[in-house]
Amino acid sequence: MFSLPYAIDLFGTLMFAMSGALAASDQKIHRDWFGISFTGFITAIGGGTLRDIMLDYHPLAWIRDANYVIAIALGVIVSVAFRKVLAKLRRTLFIFDTLGISLYTILGVQKSLLAGVNPLAAIMLGMFSAVFGGVIRDTLLNETPLIFRKEIYATACLAGASLYVIMDYFGAPQPVCSMSGIVLIAVIRIVAVRFQLSLPSLK
Amino acid sequence: MFSLPYAIDLFGTLMFAMSGALAASDQKIHRDWFGISFTGFITAIGGGTLRDIMLDYHPLAWIRDANYVIAIALGVIVSVAFRKVLAKLRRTLFIFDTLGISLYTILGVQKSLLAGVNPLAAIMLGMFSAVFGGVIRDTLLNETPLIFRKEIYATACLAGASLYVIMDYFGAPQPVCSMSGIVLIAVIRIVAVRFQLSLPSLK
Amino acid sequence: MFSLPYAIDLFGTLMFAMSGALAASDQKIHRDWFGISFTGFITAIGGGTLRDIMLDYHPLAWIRDANYVIAIALGVIVSVAFRKVLAKLRRTLFIFDTLGISLYTILGVQKSLLAGVNPLAAIMLGMFSAVFGGVIRDTLLNETPLIFRKEIYATACLAGASLYVIMDYFGAPQPVCSMSGIVLIAVIRIVAVRFQLSLPSLK
Repeated sequence: MFSLPYAIDLFGTLMFAMSGALAASDQKIHRDWFGISFTGFITAIGGGTLRDIMLDYHPLAWIRDANYVIAIALGVIVSVAFRKVLAKLRRTLFIFDTLGISLYTILGVQKSLLAGVNPLAAIMLGMFSAVFGGVIRDTLLNETPLIFRKEIYATACLAGASLYVIMDYFGAPQPVCSMSGIVLIAVIRIVAVRFQLSLPSLK
Repeated sequence: MFSLPYAIDLFGTLMFAMSGALAASDQKIHRDWFGISFTGFITAIGGGTLRDIMLDYHPLAWIRDANYVIAIALGVIVSVAFRKVLAKLRRTLFIFDTLGISLYTILGVQKSLLAGVNPLAAIMLGMFSAVFGGVIRDTLLNETPLIFRKEIYATACLAGASLYVIMDYFGAPQPVCSMSGIVLIAVIRIVAVRFQLSLPSLK
Repeated sequence: MFSLPYAIDLFGTLMFAMSGALAASDQKIHRDWFGISFTGFITAIGGGTLRDIMLDYHPLAWIRDANYVIAIALGVIVSVAFRKVLAKLRRTLFIFDTLGISLYTILGVQKSLLAGVNPLAAIMLGMFSAVFGGVIRDTLLNETPLIFRKEIYATACLAGASLYVIMDYFGAPQPVCSMSGIVLIAVIRIVAVRFQLSLPSLK
């Protein structure tokens, strides 16, 4: 019942809920408990819900299974209760966020390929799953979406998703594809932040 | 043919269209008739459309049944024609808005439970049905979403939806659950506005 | 395999991707290649994806058929490579945009009527297909959506869509309906821009 992918999915949901709740509690206008919970909820379900609606994959995880809603509630409560401690843990949170987007991207690619979509769309859907919750979070909070601001972010997801699709195409076994994709995303993210790398810009 | 829930649904659609049209006509940039109609339309269909897409409930009401589009058109025309009178009727409009979100929340919860979703998701979907049109309206108009600003708003929907789900769980008859949920939402809203109550905020 | 409507659809997708990529490359914050590609992608798939999700029409074009993703990539690359030339071609681009929204509106109306929706909803869905990608683009770039700013824009789509629906109702053959609708949209757009016509505004 509690398989590894399921545990990962619930854990990712909780992490995304925390990222939304913490972002909202940093803002003057959203910091009552409804603003914080709502932002946490939308951030947590945004990417997966969009992916599954686009794939016509129903019922949606959080609609089928109350554990997702419980994981989100937990994430929100932890964020509010420990927000002062968490504020000092930016580095730890960065690791969780990196793990979160790595796992979510690969989960999204797998799910898409299983649903029979073309590999290019699977790459896009994997990236969407990982970053779209954050896009909605930032739009709600009226900030420039993180994916446009930060050191190489969604691009890392695209790279990992592409690696997965290519290795899968050449017949590599699933766990090898998954691990390679996840590691690539995490490494790119860590290197980019460590050395403050950005993508080249137009002049 | 013209059952009570159907009449309520059309009436709520018209009210939401008016709320969108009036908000747009208050703004410099959206006050030509297209801006007003478009905002009215999106506000009116937003919540229900999102709910039904998430529930995979097709065809969408306004796609299946032209009466919804007609109700919206009517709402837009009334808003534009009588906007000066309506501006003086804030209190009356508040009552309509309160009725609108109360009815829509409970309708959304019922529909979700009928579709077999878990009760926690049904509560969220009921609240979404009621407030999401307004979230889209405010995002389009580049304002901070009302649900983040106002005296206890979406929280009232959550409370009423929860009451419905709990009473339903303990076997109370549907009309009793519905009435209780609707009344609870309306009472919380009225009390909150009357005494300017907000949710506690983080310091 | 390469039927006319299919070619038109791919061409429209490419044009929309260019419009998104060019808008992003005008902005300080989105002008790295990810920001440009992402905005191009969302602009290109936004309208059609929303229409098909609302119609429950699956799989989505770009998920089923990699050519759409390739057309988008091509549009993004062309935009970046030739952005200086393109900046001088505003008039040419205007023609492409006009063609794009004309074709997309009528395609959307046809698809909706085929899916059996009511004519009023078909008109709305036709207009949505044409303009919604742009709405998402402008929301992502934090600008007032074009459809609220510009000389008669979405209204032209509504007019053309209505003409199609009316002629279809009176039994005119499909190609005649299509051509009439497309021409009407293009003419309204061209006249509106030429003479800087806007819709009447509320005082």
